[in-house]
Amino acid sequence: MSKTDPGRFFEDYRLGEVIEHAVPRTLSGGERALYHALYPARGALYSSDMFAASCGLRSAPLDDLIAFHTVFGKTVPDISLNAVANLGYAEGRWLAPVWPGDTLRARSEVIGLKQNSNGRSGVVWVRTTGSNQHGTDVLSYVRWVMVRRRSEGPAPQTVIPDLAPALRIGDLVPPEGLDFSRYDDVLAGERHRLGDYAVGEVIDHVDAVTIEEAEHMLATRLWQNTAKVHFDATQREDGRRLIYGGHVISLARALSFNGLANAQMIVGLNGGAHANPCFAGDTVRAFSEVLETGQTNAPGVGAIRVRLAAVKVTEARDEGYGLKGPDGRYLPHVLLDLDIWALMPV
Amino acid sequence: MSKTDPGRFFEDYRLGEVIEHAVPRTLSGGERALYHALYPARGALYSSDMFAASCGLRSAPLDDLIAFHTVFGKTVPDISLNAVANLGYAEGRWLAPVWPGDTLRARSEVIGLKQNSNGRSGVVWVRTTGSNQHGTDVLSYVRWVMVRRRSEGPAPQTVIPDLAPALRIGDLVPPEGLDFSRYDDVLAGERHRLGDYAVGEVIDHVDAVTIEEAEHMLATRLWQNTAKVHFDATQREDGRRLIYGGHVISLARALSFNGLANAQMIVGLNGGAHANPCFAGDTVRAFSEVLETGQTNAPGVGAIRVRLAAVKVTEARDEGYGLKGPDGRYLPHVLLDLDIWALMPV
Amino acid sequence: MSKTDPGRFFEDYRLGEVIEHAVPRTLSGGERALYHALYPARGALYSSDMFAASCGLRSAPLDDLIAFHTVFGKTVPDISLNAVANLGYAEGRWLAPVWPGDTLRARSEVIGLKQNSNGRSGVVWVRTTGSNQHGTDVLSYVRWVMVRRRSEGPAPQTVIPDLAPALRIGDLVPPEGLDFSRYDDVLAGERHRLGDYAVGEVIDHVDAVTIEEAEHMLATRLWQNTAKVHFDATQREDGRRLIYGGHVISLARALSFNGLANAQMIVGLNGGAHANPCFAGDTVRAFSEVLETGQTNAPGVGAIRVRLAAVKVTEARDEGYGLKGPDGRYLPHVLLDLDIWALMPV
Repeated sequence: MSKTDPGRFFEDYRLGEVIEHAVPRTLSGGERALYHALYPARGALYSSDMFAASCGLRSAPLDDLIAFHTVFGKTVPDISLNAVANLGYAEGRWLAPVWPGDTLRARSEVIGLKQNSNGRSGVVWVRTTGSNQHGTDVLSYVRWVMVRRRSEGPAPQTVIPDLAPALRIGDLVPPEGLDFSRYDDVLAGERHRLGDYAVGEVIDHVDAVTIEEAEHMLATRLWQNTAKVHFDATQREDGRRLIYGGHVISLARALSFNGLANAQMIVGLNGGAHANPCFAGDTVRAFSEVLETGQTNAPGVGAIRVRLAAVKVTEARDEGYGLKGPDGRYLPHVLLDLDIWALMPV
Repeated sequence: MSKTDPGRFFEDYRLGEVIEHAVPRTLSGGERALYHALYPARGALYSSDMFAASCGLRSAPLDDLIAFHTVFGKTVPDISLNAVANLGYAEGRWLAPVWPGDTLRARSEVIGLKQNSNGRSGVVWVRTTGSNQHGTDVLSYVRWVMVRRRSEGPAPQTVIPDLAPALRIGDLVPPEGLDFSRYDDVLAGERHRLGDYAVGEVIDHVDAVTIEEAEHMLATRLWQNTAKVHFDATQREDGRRLIYGGHVISLARALSFNGLANAQMIVGLNGGAHANPCFAGDTVRAFSEVLETGQTNAPGVGAIRVRLAAVKVTEARDEGYGLKGPDGRYLPHVLLDLDIWALMPV
Repeated sequence: MSKTDPGRFFEDYRLGEVIEHAVPRTLSGGERALYHALYPARGALYSSDMFAASCGLRSAPLDDLIAFHTVFGKTVPDISLNAVANLGYAEGRWLAPVWPGDTLRARSEVIGLKQNSNGRSGVVWVRTTGSNQHGTDVLSYVRWVMVRRRSEGPAPQTVIPDLAPALRIGDLVPPEGLDFSRYDDVLAGERHRLGDYAVGEVIDHVDAVTIEEAEHMLATRLWQNTAKVHFDATQREDGRRLIYGGHVISLARALSFNGLANAQMIVGLNGGAHANPCFAGDTVRAFSEVLETGQTNAPGVGAIRVRLAAVKVTEARDEGYGLKGPDGRYLPHVLLDLDIWALMPV
C-alpha cells in the first residue's frame, strides 16, 4: 500500500461531496510579523491594536489575506495538487475577523463538474469555507480549477454552477462593531475617503518590488501550501519555480496602500485571474481601477469595489494599465486581474 | 586581553566537566510561525491548538525540532566552534513538551575524550540537556564531534562512552496526558496508523525542495547557531556556505509528512550522520525506512522507529533509497541518515 | 486628484512643524523571532525572560534596535522618501523599554533647515520621538537628511540646530528597575565587565556575514520602511538594490556580541554615518573602539560608549579598523561608523 498521497484526479470528485481538509492551523502574532516582512503591508487597522480599537474592534485582526491564504493552503492537497490551472474565483466573502490565537480549518463542497472534450481533464468547482475554533465561518469562496484525469473514462454529468458576476454591497459582512465615524486619516496614512474616488478612476500605485526565490517560498510554506511547482526547481524543464498566485495577490494588495490606504479590509472577492505566471526576478507593480462604491449599514463604513491588477515591469518600461490586447487576451506582462470589495470610511 | 571568544579546543575539555551554555532563549508563536515558513511542516499536533487538545495536551507544543535546534544552538560556542566534523548522535530523548513562552537553557557534560593519533585533534563526547524555566529537562542527547587541538600535546586518557545503539520503547517519554484514542485521521491528513506500517517498508516521500541561501541562514540564526561556515561566504575556498546539518534534518522531517503524517512527535534520536555537505541550490528529497514499531503506555499511542534519509536530487535523477555504496560509504548524493522514534496512533 | 503620496520635498518643511507619522504598529513575539532570524543577535537580556527578570525587568523587552527601526520606518514616507542622503544622527536616547504587545507611533518636529547653494535641494533636521500606547516616549533622536526641492525657489531662513556631539552619562535613561548587581556572566556569554574595557581599546568582532537580497528586504519591510531603492531592482541603473542603512546597524550590533556580549542595552546614539552603500553579496564584519566608560545611578549598571564600525570584507582581506584615509574621507570598504552608549555591568 503506497503511503503517500497522490492527490485527487478529476474522476475522484462527486457533485455535492464535502471534503474536510486536513491540518487545522492556529495563527499568532508570528504570522502577522511574517506577513509584514513578506509584503509591504501598511494597513493601519491590521497593523495597530490601538487603531483597530478606535474603529470599534477589540484589537487588530490578522490581515484579511492571512485568512485567505491559510484557508486556501488547507485545500491544496485535496483540490489543486493535480491541477493544470487555477481558473477563477467567485462569491468570496470574509464573514468574521480572524484574531491571533484563532485556529482555522477548511472544508470544500464540490458544486460543479465539467469534463473537457479531450477526456484527459476536467473543471472542478468547489465552494470552500474556512471556520474558526468556535465553529464560526470566517471566509467562503468559490474556486474552479482544471484537474487531470487519472485515466480516460466517461464524463460525469456536466454541472456548471450559477455564480454571481459580483457581490452586491448588501452581500458584504462588515465585522461586528466596525465603526469608521471617528476614523483618523492621519494615522491611516491618507486623506482620500470613499467620496474622493470616482468610478472609472485608475490609480497607478507607483511602487514596485523585485521578488526573490526565498521570499515566495517562505510565504507559500507559511500557508502550508504544498504544491511542488513552487518549491522544487527540478519540476519544470526551465528550472524555474512557479510563484504561488496568492503571493502576487498579497504583493499587489500591499502595493495598493499608496493610493488606497483607506481601503482597510477586503470583504469581497468577486473574481480573479492569474493572467500569466510569475517568477523570481520579476519586478511587480500594481494598478487599481474603481468599479463601484456604496455604503454599508455599519456607521461611517463605505465599500469600494476595485479591479486590482499586478503587472511585471518590462524592459521597455511602457507597461501601463491596459491589461488585454485587441484579441481580448491578457498581455504578456500582466500577472493578476482581481475584482474585490474593500471597506473604506465615507 | 582579547575580548572575543576563540571557542574551546580539544585540550580544553575535561572528563566529567559540566558546561553551562550561555544565552537562554524564550520561545513564542513567532518561532513557530517561522518554522512553518522555513519548512513544509504540517504535523497537525504542532499546527493546531484544537488538534493538540483533542490529543490530551493543553495546546499545541512547539515542534520537537524547535526544541532540538534551540538547545543545539546554545551548545555551538562551547562545543563545535572549532569542530572539524559533527560525528554522531545517540540516546536522544524528548522529555517534556516545549510551549510558547517557555525559556530554554542548556548544559553539557563531557562524557568521553579520545585524541586522534595525529595529535592535532580529538573526539569529544558530550551529553547535552535542555531545560525550561521550571528546571524541568525537556531534551537530552549525546553528540560527539572532532575538535582541533590548539597545539600538539600529550593525550588525555581515552574514554569512550558506552552508548545504546538504539533506545527501547520503554525509554521513550510520551508527553503527560497524551491520548490518541480519539485521534482524528481526517484532520491529521492521513489514514495510515501504526498497524499499517511494516518493518522494512521504505517510503519515498515524493516531494522535494530546492534550498536558497537566505533560507538556511534565517533558520540557523533563528537558533542562535553562530558557526561561521554557515554565514560567511569568504570562509571556504569555493565561496560556498555550508548548510547547518539541522536544517536538513528539519527539511527531511517536514517532507516525511507525505507518508508519515501520523508520526506526530519525535521522542527519540537513536543516531544520525550528516553523510555529505549540503549547499544552497541543492534540491532535497526524503525517504523513510521502518525499523521497528511498538506500543507505549499512553492510551492509543504507539511508537514507530524510522530511518529518515535526505538525498540530493541529481542530474541523473536515479537517486533511490540506497544510501551506501559497496564499500560501505555513503553515496555522494546522500545528505542525512537519521534514526528516530516518533509517536503514532495505534 | 492624484491619490498616491509623492513624499515631501524640501520646500514642504516649515521650522517648528510637527509631523504625526502614519500607521502605528503593534509589536509581538513575532517581530522578536524574526529579529533573531535576520541578525545573529544573542544579547541575553533581549533573548530570555528569565535573564531579564534576574536583571530587575518584568520580562525580556524587544531589542533596542527593533524600537529604533519601527520608529524610523514610520518616518520614511514623510521625511526621507525624496531624500538624496541620510546625513547623520544625534542625541538619540532610548527612554523606556518596548514590550511585546506595545503599539508604537512616531512624530517628528522640524528643528533645522538649510537650502543648498545649488538651489535644488536642502538639508532638513528633525527630532523624531516614538511613543507607546500609554503615551510614554520610548525613543527620541535627531536625524538630518538631504531632500530634493520640487522646483527651484527662494531659500527659507537657515537654521542649524545646536546638537550635542555626544550624550553625557547623566543624559542616559536606564530602564526602571534595571539592576545588574546579581548579573550572571555565564548565562550572558562573556566575563568582561565595564572595568575590563580600556578607552582606546579596539575589538575585532571576528565573525562575518554575507548578505542576501531576500534578507535585507524582509528586514526592511518588517519595519514598514517603504523607500523604493531597497526593493525595486529597476530603480538604479546598475540593477542593484541599496540595503537599508539600519540593516547594517543591526548586523554590526549583533556581530559585536562576540567581544561585547555584556553591552546589553543601547541607550544612546551620539552620531552615525552610513559611510558607503551596502549591497547583497557583501560580506560584513564589525569592529568596536571604546570611547568612554562610566557609571549610571542604577545598581551595578555602568555605561560604555563605543564607536561601532561595519566594514566589507574585501578581496585583499586587508581591511582593518582604519576607517578613513589620509584625506579624512571614509575608505571605500567602510559601511558604518556609529557612536553609541550601551549599558554594561560594572
